[in-house]
Amino acid sequence: MNKHGSTIVAIATAPGIGALGIIRISGPESFRIADALFSGKKIQDVATNTLHYGWIRNQEGKILDEVILSVFKAPHSYTGEDIIELSCHGSPYILQEVVNEILKCGASLAKPGEFTLRAFLNGKMDLSQAEAVADLIASENEATHSLAFSQLKGGIRSEIGHLRSEMVDYISLIELELDFAEEDVEFADRTKLKLLLEKIHKEIEKLKNSFVLGNAIKNGINTVIAGKPNAGKSTLLNALLNEERALVSEIAGTTRDTIEEKLNINGIAFRFIDTAGIREAKDAIEAMGVERTMEKIRQSMILIYVFDVIMTTKEELWEDISGLVRGDQKFIIIANKMDLNPYIDYQDFINPQIQKEQIIPCSAKNKMNIDYLKDRLYQITVGDQKMNADTIVVNARHLDALNRADQNITEAITGLQSNLQTDLLAQNIRLAIYSLSEISGEITNDEILGNIFGKFCIGK
Amino acid sequence: MNKHGSTIVAIATAPGIGALGIIRISGPESFRIADALFSGKKIQDVATNTLHYGWIRNQEGKILDEVILSVFKAPHSYTGEDIIELSCHGSPYILQEVVNEILKCGASLAKPGEFTLRAFLNGKMDLSQAEAVADLIASENEATHSLAFSQLKGGIRSEIGHLRSEMVDYISLIELELDFAEEDVEFADRTKLKLLLEKIHKEIEKLKNSFVLGNAIKNGINTVIAGKPNAGKSTLLNALLNEERALVSEIAGTTRDTIEEKLNINGIAFRFIDTAGIREAKDAIEAMGVERTMEKIRQSMILIYVFDVIMTTKEELWEDISGLVRGDQKFIIIANKMDLNPYIDYQDFINPQIQKEQIIPCSAKNKMNIDYLKDRLYQITVGDQKMNADTIVVNARHLDALNRADQNITEAITGLQSNLQTDLLAQNIRLAIYSLSEISGEITNDEILGNIFGKFCIGK
Repeated sequence: MNKHGSTIVAIATAPGIGALGIIRISGPESFRIADALFSGKKIQDVATNTLHYGWIRNQEGKILDEVILSVFKAPHSYTGEDIIELSCHGSPYILQEVVNEILKCGASLAKPGEFTLRAFLNGKMDLSQAEAVADLIASENEATHSLAFSQLKGGIRSEIGHLRSEMVDYISLIELELDFAEEDVEFADRTKLKLLLEKIHKEIEKLKNSFVLGNAIKNGINTVIAGKPNAGKSTLLNALLNEERALVSEIAGTTRDTIEEKLNINGIAFRFIDTAGIREAKDAIEAMGVERTMEKIRQSMILIYVFDVIMTTKEELWEDISGLVRGDQKFIIIANKMDLNPYIDYQDFINPQIQKEQIIPCSAKNKMNIDYLKDRLYQITVGDQKMNADTIVVNARHLDALNRADQNITEAITGLQSNLQTDLLAQNIRLAIYSLSEISGEITNDEILGNIFGKFCIGK
Repeated sequence: MNKHGSTIVAIATAPGIGALGIIRISGPESFRIADALFSGKKIQDVATNTLHYGWIRNQEGKILDEVILSVFKAPHSYTGEDIIELSCHGSPYILQEVVNEILKCGASLAKPGEFTLRAFLNGKMDLSQAEAVADLIASENEATHSLAFSQLKGGIRSEIGHLRSEMVDYISLIELELDFAEEDVEFADRTKLKLLLEKIHKEIEKLKNSFVLGNAIKNGINTVIAGKPNAGKSTLLNALLNEERALVSEIAGTTRDTIEEKLNINGIAFRFIDTAGIREAKDAIEAMGVERTMEKIRQSMILIYVFDVIMTTKEELWEDISGLVRGDQKFIIIANKMDLNPYIDYQDFINPQIQKEQIIPCSAKNKMNIDYLKDRLYQITVGDQKMNADTIVVNARHLDALNRADQNITEAITGLQSNLQTDLLAQNIRLAIYSLSEISGEITNDEILGNIFGKFCIGK
């Protein structure tokens, strides 16, 4: 049960003063250490999953704290090892003193994520689930929380496991063929194999595509607000945030630097970037501002282009935006300042390149249609993707493994079309299986584990 | 058991991201609420002091977190009520969502210290012990930790209880006399009563005097470093701290503002205050600096006066310090720059007003005798007071109650000498008992409780 010789200890609650602070001990010596310091019941004798009131004393007999001690006997614990948790008074001084005393009894200080690493090594969870624990702790809104939970519950694990096992069945047959190479037999039906690989390729493509959304949800969806000077970009940002964040004036060119603000829409974090107005720059500082705007537009997932309905003609609008939009970028046009002239029809700005649903008539100043804009932002990004039902890839490591698997599968498919040698075909499929196995951690190495768990917080 | 109708909830761990975060629920509805949200065992049926693994779901059935749930059945809990603690993933978002769900089930948000207030109201601890809980959480070093613990274990409670009960015995006799007033009997022996009151007065004096140390330990011992310009005050501060905190130069008057730094000596916090040199100020800013120095000296418990052994005569030293020292102030003289002339004897500076042990020969620059200075600082403040054995008053509220009790006892003693009327004597003793009862909280009111618990952190 305790494959990992040492017993580790760490403060598991957030740093700073609180009502309670938790110290966690895991490993074969946990109960012996608890019995050395705890003056309550003898811990080696009590049942698992029980709570005990008592005192922690140092080796000189001085009381360090009055605590509640939790006992989890292996394998009924987070790590699968014997675990003791001490619920102490939440003074950083006291917590540190108690940890020091536990170290004196022979425990060592846990490295970041070491409890979860042990849970993984002891088979309590796979690697993708361990990664989900860190995502869960970092989750800041409903969307990141849901994604992390779906992964914790084994979302990607079962999806990948399914694809993998289908390939494993075939690889055994192909390897059998290699054993009988001289007899020129074909145990694995090539037509069926090609169909299977094409199906897997499609499913991996779908998973890879989900990363765009997964990553955006995890890190926030970059949304640039751009437009000509004085179009009302900063006023729009303030209206979206419902506060006076950006400096607003009637002088064109008030915003020189880019301003970034996060807003939670239906549980998704959007990162709005207000930019300097795009025009022929009058000086070097302004030119830098415009260049920065163009850079931000290139990096963003969504572009909100704001124009002034009074000062802009249909032709000008068309000319202005034609240079800005990337093919894969989501795009919303705000027909702003609608309040200034009741006779203006925003539909007059529609042209063959701009569909009706891409334009939103608006008065940022009066907050007209701001809620509608928020709905549109949510729709064009998350839309009707079933965030709980579909597996969404959020982890760059998983994307990398999927890319490698996909490359080998594509090579195998091409190979099947051109009668590739059986051993090279087997090699491709084996590598694809290998890459997929990295996601759940069936295949791993110290470097991968170090990268993953090094980013965890101490005590988890 | 549950005198306090409502069920309260709060996050009990420090704010911020951690491996674990604890949510605490206390009150008659705790188990019903747990059963509504927790999908594991039925909590109403399980034994007290047990731990259970499961999921927290909201009312729509969505999983909010994977938790370990602790069950404490009344009266076997911190508050004396039914308590549930949820050990969640340490994401502030998740903790808030779970708390919100518990609020929807009918709990209310706990006010600061409300759990401990309930523990007090349910007789789990007296008021001085409740106050010690807050001190314990705030404790930053060994001394504050020891003081808080001694109070938590009932130090002042038993001391006060003892004094109180002796007076209670007499007050019954005196009140009996009042009942038989017409018969002019004397049940209470006046000589013995006077002896008792004098003894109590002495013990209260001792407790009151301990507050100087108790308060200094709790808040840090203010130690001013003063002296003429260029005597080496900042160099001494840097030597004490073992780092370059204060700006040092050969130009006299480098330090204009006061600099404060905390240093832990044998578990006691000393707050060192480096000051502008004392001299005839050349300009208004410097004059303000000197005035601030004088103010700091007046407020400090210890004055360290630094002088330059090369540049100062015995007479000058004597003249310089005679205006600075208060009678009750502890006083150390540093004969600095001893490294500059091997033939100088610091004992030459001794005079009838300056004892040998008050002067320490030193070279701040070479860190000569810095450890000895630290030892001296500890000795002259804490010295051989047995910090664990003696009861030390740390709480201003207790000091105030002791002052009032003492005033009434002194009046009673004077009264006994001048044959005070029995009813006035009884009144004095009754008031003294009343004041002492406030310390342990036998007598209290909402305002006192509000003041005490309002300073607690949420969740305790």
